[in-house]
Amino acid sequence: MTPPGVLRQRLEATMEAAGGRPVLVTARSSVRYVSGFTGSAGALWIPLEGPPVLVTDFRYEEQAGIEVADSAATSQSSSAIRTHISREGWMRGVAQVAADPGGAIAFEAEGLTVADYESLRGMLPDVDFVPLRDLVRTLRRVKTRDEVDAIERAVAVAEGALNRLLSTMEWSAAPSEREIAAALEMELRLGGSDPLPFDPIVAAGERSALPHATPTDRRAEPGDFLLIDFGARVDGYCSDLTRTFVRGVPAPWQVTLHEQVLEAQTRAGEVIGPGIACRDVDRAVRETFARHDVEGFFGHGTGHGIGLDVHEGPSLSSRSDDVLERGNVVTVEPGLYLPGRGGVRIEDDVRIGEAGARTLTRIPRALVRL
Amino acid sequence: MTPPGVLRQRLEATMEAAGGRPVLVTARSSVRYVSGFTGSAGALWIPLEGPPVLVTDFRYEEQAGIEVADSAATSQSSSAIRTHISREGWMRGVAQVAADPGGAIAFEAEGLTVADYESLRGMLPDVDFVPLRDLVRTLRRVKTRDEVDAIERAVAVAEGALNRLLSTMEWSAAPSEREIAAALEMELRLGGSDPLPFDPIVAAGERSALPHATPTDRRAEPGDFLLIDFGARVDGYCSDLTRTFVRGVPAPWQVTLHEQVLEAQTRAGEVIGPGIACRDVDRAVRETFARHDVEGFFGHGTGHGIGLDVHEGPSLSSRSDDVLERGNVVTVEPGLYLPGRGGVRIEDDVRIGEAGARTLTRIPRALVRL
Repeated sequence: MTPPGVLRQRLEATMEAAGGRPVLVTARSSVRYVSGFTGSAGALWIPLEGPPVLVTDFRYEEQAGIEVADSAATSQSSSAIRTHISREGWMRGVAQVAADPGGAIAFEAEGLTVADYESLRGMLPDVDFVPLRDLVRTLRRVKTRDEVDAIERAVAVAEGALNRLLSTMEWSAAPSEREIAAALEMELRLGGSDPLPFDPIVAAGERSALPHATPTDRRAEPGDFLLIDFGARVDGYCSDLTRTFVRGVPAPWQVTLHEQVLEAQTRAGEVIGPGIACRDVDRAVRETFARHDVEGFFGHGTGHGIGLDVHEGPSLSSRSDDVLERGNVVTVEPGLYLPGRGGVRIEDDVRIGEAGARTLTRIPRALVRL
Repeated sequence: MTPPGVLRQRLEATMEAAGGRPVLVTARSSVRYVSGFTGSAGALWIPLEGPPVLVTDFRYEEQAGIEVADSAATSQSSSAIRTHISREGWMRGVAQVAADPGGAIAFEAEGLTVADYESLRGMLPDVDFVPLRDLVRTLRRVKTRDEVDAIERAVAVAEGALNRLLSTMEWSAAPSEREIAAALEMELRLGGSDPLPFDPIVAAGERSALPHATPTDRRAEPGDFLLIDFGARVDGYCSDLTRTFVRGVPAPWQVTLHEQVLEAQTRAGEVIGPGIACRDVDRAVRETFARHDVEGFFGHGTGHGIGLDVHEGPSLSSRSDDVLERGNVVTVEPGLYLPGRGGVRIEDDVRIGEAGARTLTRIPRALVRL
């Protein structure tokens, strides 16, 4: 449970980021961040005067009352959040509470589809809207101690699940990607994860060269790479880890590929820290790959922030203008993918501190044989 | 694999629905529907002349080649889909292939956030865009034989998983919502489901009154309702089922509540069919509840279409203007929720035929004791 004082700070920071306009918070994770409400449908209306209002629909009536009341329970401030339930969906509810906003309404541009935006404009034809990017997402980049704790617990749940998977799976029976994924999902949930932040990627053999493969009936046979990219969610916060294993004895090219990725990931870890441009971390990875003449086999970015969403800011890519600061938690996940042969990715979660960075992931990165 | 002839028909129908404009298909499920591509990032560009182009990023380079090549393999038509990979993300790729569209670009209003829309407009400042609602979604409402087959297989996988869960879980040990959900997820995946269409809802006791509860450590104790809302995904298509059980011997109020929902669901099944207004199916449910004086405890709609998305058209609600037609597949899911006590929902998947409707779900609807 987020302390009411922290929620109040987030409310005030959101209003400030909107430049003194009334604000509509629409992204699910941002609504949770500012109000404590965890439902999948709803918005937070922050007027210029009077209390903020969490708007949702009938399905969440009881839940919204509990969650928002809890977060406001000890708050004496007039900014304690009220709830408004609409039987005709949350958008109609927003139209009811925001009919007379006293100014153009700022909203989260990432949190609304063009279709919903047009519906809302149709319901409030006399109101001006101002789409703002990264309105709440910018605030969310800098994690509090409690948020980092939740991410660390999500890392611990993920690592525990992977360890149990590695020791309980009958690898000699060549389980399929689908069987491995199902067992991993169960270990994650039994180990304490809330609904998973994303469907695990389990890719065997040549399929490990597909960076976003979904599990199939392909079996993990001797000599195959086995790439597993997965995460847990604890108290709303995500972890995101990748390890690449090999069934049996690795071929020389597999050892080399894994070493190159490990070297690049280590290099990124040496560069990363507060005040460092994200693109410089990405460049460290690319330069390592270039030295081995394999940079053409790495096509995605080096990493991304994690938090209430599994993909959030800052972005560690070559086109990023972000600069790392204390409180950021990001993935570092270089990979090399040889089409038709196989791929390797190694992904850790890293917290940026005051003077350096700390890797939250503890499982070894060496090439493990299954 | 969708036959090339069917994909070609869908392409042509999409162009027609856009009124002769070039079209950008942006919703993930619509991209799959028209092109066969199953990745999570990308768009389908359909110019007025020349072949359509699937635009995606590096992560899907190999996969896009396989999937789009497969679907176009036997096609002799010039409408065979090409692929375009952008190293700078799919939006930059769209800006590359659609720079000179020869007219205003129609796009799926539900498939783009306001933020992405503004990025795209920034990349193509001289191009006009026309957001259209239900551009591809309207086509997707009417399922082919193959699509209904996939949904039926997804129903069978879900029912098999539930049956195994019911017979293998140690109910006398009062398992927690989280343990039940984890076991169900594993049964679904091992039973042949692709990544699940949604996180199962498992709600015990008074928590069954929260229509969208997420599983917690709450145990299913004797006397508790246990509501389970879940589905499987097969070949991209979803099933969506709900049953409400009771641990041990039900109290009279529980028997009554379950009977009332069952009666309303049966009544909806008598009304539903081709040519029937969706709101009339919803009204049949509400009138049944009103006769028992409990209509205030039912706040959501009666159902929704299922297909590549677990929520699509048509909508069976009191505000819907949709009329059912042959080939629709919809859920019928009335529920009653008594705050602080418990709730019941019963949900079946129903296919609309030429003369009537057929329930795809086979598991019994009676109140089962665990």
